[in-house]
Amino acid sequence: MISIVLENIHRYNLITKGDNVVIGLSGGPDSMALLYCLYEIQKELDFNIVAAHVNHGVRGEDALIDQLFTEDVCNRLKIPYHTINVDMNKYGKEKGITAEEAGRELRYGFFRNLLKDLGGGKIAVAHNKNDQAETLLMRIMRGTGIDGLKGMEFKSGDIIRPILNISRDEIEKFIKTNDIETVLDKTNLFPIYSRNKVRLELIPYIEKNFNSNIIEALWRLSQTSSLDVEFLDDYCEKKFKLMVKEIQDDCIIIDGDLFGSEQKGIKQRLLRMFVLKLTGSLQGFTEQHIVLMLDLFTELVTGKQINLPLGLTARVSYDELIIERERSFKYEGFEYKLGMGENYFKDLNLKFKLSLIDNYDGFKMGKDRKYFDFNKIRGNLYIRNRKFGDVFVPLGMVGSKKIKDYFIDKKIPRDKRDRIPLLVDGEDIIWIIGYGISDRYKIDKDTTKILMIEYKYTT
Amino acid sequence: MISIVLENIHRYNLITKGDNVVIGLSGGPDSMALLYCLYEIQKELDFNIVAAHVNHGVRGEDALIDQLFTEDVCNRLKIPYHTINVDMNKYGKEKGITAEEAGRELRYGFFRNLLKDLGGGKIAVAHNKNDQAETLLMRIMRGTGIDGLKGMEFKSGDIIRPILNISRDEIEKFIKTNDIETVLDKTNLFPIYSRNKVRLELIPYIEKNFNSNIIEALWRLSQTSSLDVEFLDDYCEKKFKLMVKEIQDDCIIIDGDLFGSEQKGIKQRLLRMFVLKLTGSLQGFTEQHIVLMLDLFTELVTGKQINLPLGLTARVSYDELIIERERSFKYEGFEYKLGMGENYFKDLNLKFKLSLIDNYDGFKMGKDRKYFDFNKIRGNLYIRNRKFGDVFVPLGMVGSKKIKDYFIDKKIPRDKRDRIPLLVDGEDIIWIIGYGISDRYKIDKDTTKILMIEYKYTT
Repeated sequence: MISIVLENIHRYNLITKGDNVVIGLSGGPDSMALLYCLYEIQKELDFNIVAAHVNHGVRGEDALIDQLFTEDVCNRLKIPYHTINVDMNKYGKEKGITAEEAGRELRYGFFRNLLKDLGGGKIAVAHNKNDQAETLLMRIMRGTGIDGLKGMEFKSGDIIRPILNISRDEIEKFIKTNDIETVLDKTNLFPIYSRNKVRLELIPYIEKNFNSNIIEALWRLSQTSSLDVEFLDDYCEKKFKLMVKEIQDDCIIIDGDLFGSEQKGIKQRLLRMFVLKLTGSLQGFTEQHIVLMLDLFTELVTGKQINLPLGLTARVSYDELIIERERSFKYEGFEYKLGMGENYFKDLNLKFKLSLIDNYDGFKMGKDRKYFDFNKIRGNLYIRNRKFGDVFVPLGMVGSKKIKDYFIDKKIPRDKRDRIPLLVDGEDIIWIIGYGISDRYKIDKDTTKILMIEYKYTT
Repeated sequence: MISIVLENIHRYNLITKGDNVVIGLSGGPDSMALLYCLYEIQKELDFNIVAAHVNHGVRGEDALIDQLFTEDVCNRLKIPYHTINVDMNKYGKEKGITAEEAGRELRYGFFRNLLKDLGGGKIAVAHNKNDQAETLLMRIMRGTGIDGLKGMEFKSGDIIRPILNISRDEIEKFIKTNDIETVLDKTNLFPIYSRNKVRLELIPYIEKNFNSNIIEALWRLSQTSSLDVEFLDDYCEKKFKLMVKEIQDDCIIIDGDLFGSEQKGIKQRLLRMFVLKLTGSLQGFTEQHIVLMLDLFTELVTGKQINLPLGLTARVSYDELIIERERSFKYEGFEYKLGMGENYFKDLNLKFKLSLIDNYDGFKMGKDRKYFDFNKIRGNLYIRNRKFGDVFVPLGMVGSKKIKDYFIDKKIPRDKRDRIPLLVDGEDIIWIIGYGISDRYKIDKDTTKILMIEYKYTT
C-alpha cells in the first residue's frame, strides 16, 4: 500500500519537498492508514505532517474517545496535533444546509485555517476507491453528465487524496498487517445519510445481484471519464482562445461563425465554460438555461436577449455572441445633441462652442480647441459616453482601435471611462474630449469648410 | 405522443417514404402503442407496416393467447402479420448462451428474414425511456465507459426506436386515452432476468430513497454522453485520416509522432478504432490489452511486438506503429544469392544467367533478358519475394511506387504476389521478374559496364 501511495504522490504531484500536509484524522481505518502511509513516506520525502481532528458534536462520549485516541496516537508519533469541537447540527440549521454539508464546511474551514497559520500547504483526506464508487453512484442517481462521472480527483485545489485508488478491503488488510489501532465511527453504520445508504444497502445489493466487482467497475468508469473530460475541456479551451473576440470582467464576445462550426456537445460545454469564465460558478444554471443559450446562438437573431441566472444576459449582435454580467455599479450614460454656437450641458458641467471658420490661418489648436473638416461630418453631432464596442481612428493611424484599448493605453481608470464625453456624428467618434481627435475628420488639402469646436468645464 | 414520435422520425431520419417497417409486436403496452402511433403516422407519411410476433415457447397457453390477440389486431387494422414459434430455452442451451440472448437472436433473425423477403427496410422496436434507464444501470453495474452510457440509439443499423424518449408512464396514458387493448407479458413481472430485477427492484428502490426522477436523470446522462461520444469519435476519425500511413485488409501503419501527440484518452480511443477497422470487432479485448498497446506505442522500442486477441499483433518500427492481422495463408518467403554465370533455384524452378558484356550493339531486350548498368549495383545480388513496404522506381518514372500498388496496377492476384521473384541488390529492387525493371539501374550515356541477365522457368 505504501508503494502505491508513493507512486500516486509522484504521478499526480501531490506532495513536494517541504510541503505542509494537514491530515484530516477521524481515527477510523481510512484516515489512520493514510496517516501511517504518509508517516513512512515522510522519511523518504521531506515534508511536514500535521494532524487535524474535528469533533462534530453529535456522538457525545464516543466522539470524545476518538478525540483522545487521535491525540494520543499523534503524541506517540510526535506529529503536531490540532483539534476543534463544533456542533454540525446546529451550524447546519443556522445556515439552512444539511448536517452533512455543515460537517464538511466546518471541517475544511478548520483545515484551511491551520494551513493559513502554517503558511500554506495541502489538505490530505482519506477518500478511497469505495468512496469514489459511492460518489459515482450518488451522482448517477441524482443526475450527472460525464463531467460528474470522473468523480473525485487525486488532487483538486489544495486537497489531495493519496489513497483514492485503494479499496476499503486493501485498507483493512494494511491495518491488520501493520497492527494499527483504529476507532470505529458508528455514524458510518446507520443508513441515515445518503452516502451511508449507498454504502450499506445499495452497493451490497449490486454486489450480490449484479456484479461482485462493482467497486472496480465504477473505478474504471471514473478513470476513463476523467481522461475524456480532460480532453474535452482542453479542446474547448483551445477553441475558446480562437473564438473569443473580447473578454472582460463582465463581458465575453464570441465569434458566432467559429462557435457555430462546433458540434452540439462541444457547444454546450463551451457555453458552460463562458459562464464559468465570467462568474466562476454555474450556480442556478440548469440544462434548460444552456439549451436556451444554445437556441439563441443558433438562431442568431440580432437584438434578441435572454436573461440568465447569476445576473447574466446573453444576446446576439450580427455575427457576435455576447454574454454580459450586470455591473455592480451601472453608470447611466448620457447623449446630448449639439448645435452651432454655444451649448451648455449642466449635468456634465460642460460648455461647447461650435463655429464655422473660413480663415485657414491662425489656427490655435489646443487641448480644448480642435478643427475639423465640416464636409466629412454625417448627420447630427452628439456628445455621449462610450458604448460597448465603440471604435476610433486616432490621428495619424489608418486602422481603427477599440475605445476600450485606447483608454487602457492612456491609463484612464476603469471607473472614469464611462464618463468621458465623446463627440460623435451619425457614424463615428470624432473627438474624445480631453484626448485625441479622429483621423477621419481631420483637415486635409481638400478641406473647404472648417468646423472649430471649443469646450470648457464650468467647475 | 404521436407528435413526439413524428418528430423523432423526422429528426433522426427513422423512416422514409416507401420504407418497409417491420414492427416487433409482443402485444404488450409498449409495442401496441408503437403500432398505433406508426399506424396513424402512416396516413401522413407513406410507408408499409408489417407486424411480426414471436412466440418464444416458454409461456404455453398464455403465449398462445398473445399470438392470437396480435393476429386479430393486425387483421382488424389490415396490417400484414407474420408469426413464428421458437424454443428460446432449447436454442440457448444449444448455443451456450443465456435464454435472454437466445430470444433476442431468434427475434431479430425472424425480423431480418422478413425484411429480406420484403426487399429491405427497417425493424421498429418499442424500447422506451425506461428501457434506456434500465440499460444504463445494467451497463454501469457491469462496467462501462462513456461509450456505453449513450445507451440505445434512435437508429442503429436497420433497427429504429421511434418511442425511445417516451416514458412507460406516458405510454400507459396513451394506451388508456386511446382505449387500446393490450396483453400483459407475465415474464416481465418476475425478477428472474437481470433486466427485470433492475426494473422491479433496483429502480423502485432508487426512486424511493434517492431520486424519484431517476428515469429522467439517466435519460439526460444518455443524451449528453451520446453527444460527447459522437464528438470524440468524429475527432478520432479525423485524426486517424491524418495519422494513417497505410491501411490494408490485414495491416494498419500509423505515424508514431502524430499518434504520440494526442492525449491519453484519445490514444486509447484511437487504439480501439484501429482494432475495429482491422477486425470489425473488439471481442476479447480488455482494457488491459489497450494499456499494453498504449505502453508499446509510448515506449517506441523498435522490434518489440505484442500478441493480441483476434490474431492481431502490434509492433513498432522506428516512427511507425504497426498493427497486423495474421494472414489466413502465410507464405513462407525465399531469398537466394546470385553469382555471375549460371544460377539454378530448384525451389523456384528458375534458372538465371548473368554475364558482363562490352558489346553495346545487338541488344536483344526481351521479357526474359534485361540489361543493367553494372556500376549502379551496390553489394550482392539476390532473388527474393516481396517484403512489407517494398518500393520500386518503374522504368521512365522519377518517384518510387509501392510494390503493392504496382502489383495492383498489373492486376496480379493477391495470392500470387508473394511468390513473384524480385532481383534486388543491397539497396533496391532492380527487376520484378516477368515484369518491369527499375529506372535506377537502366543503361544511360555514362554506362561503361553492362550486366545482362536472362532467366528461364524450368517447368
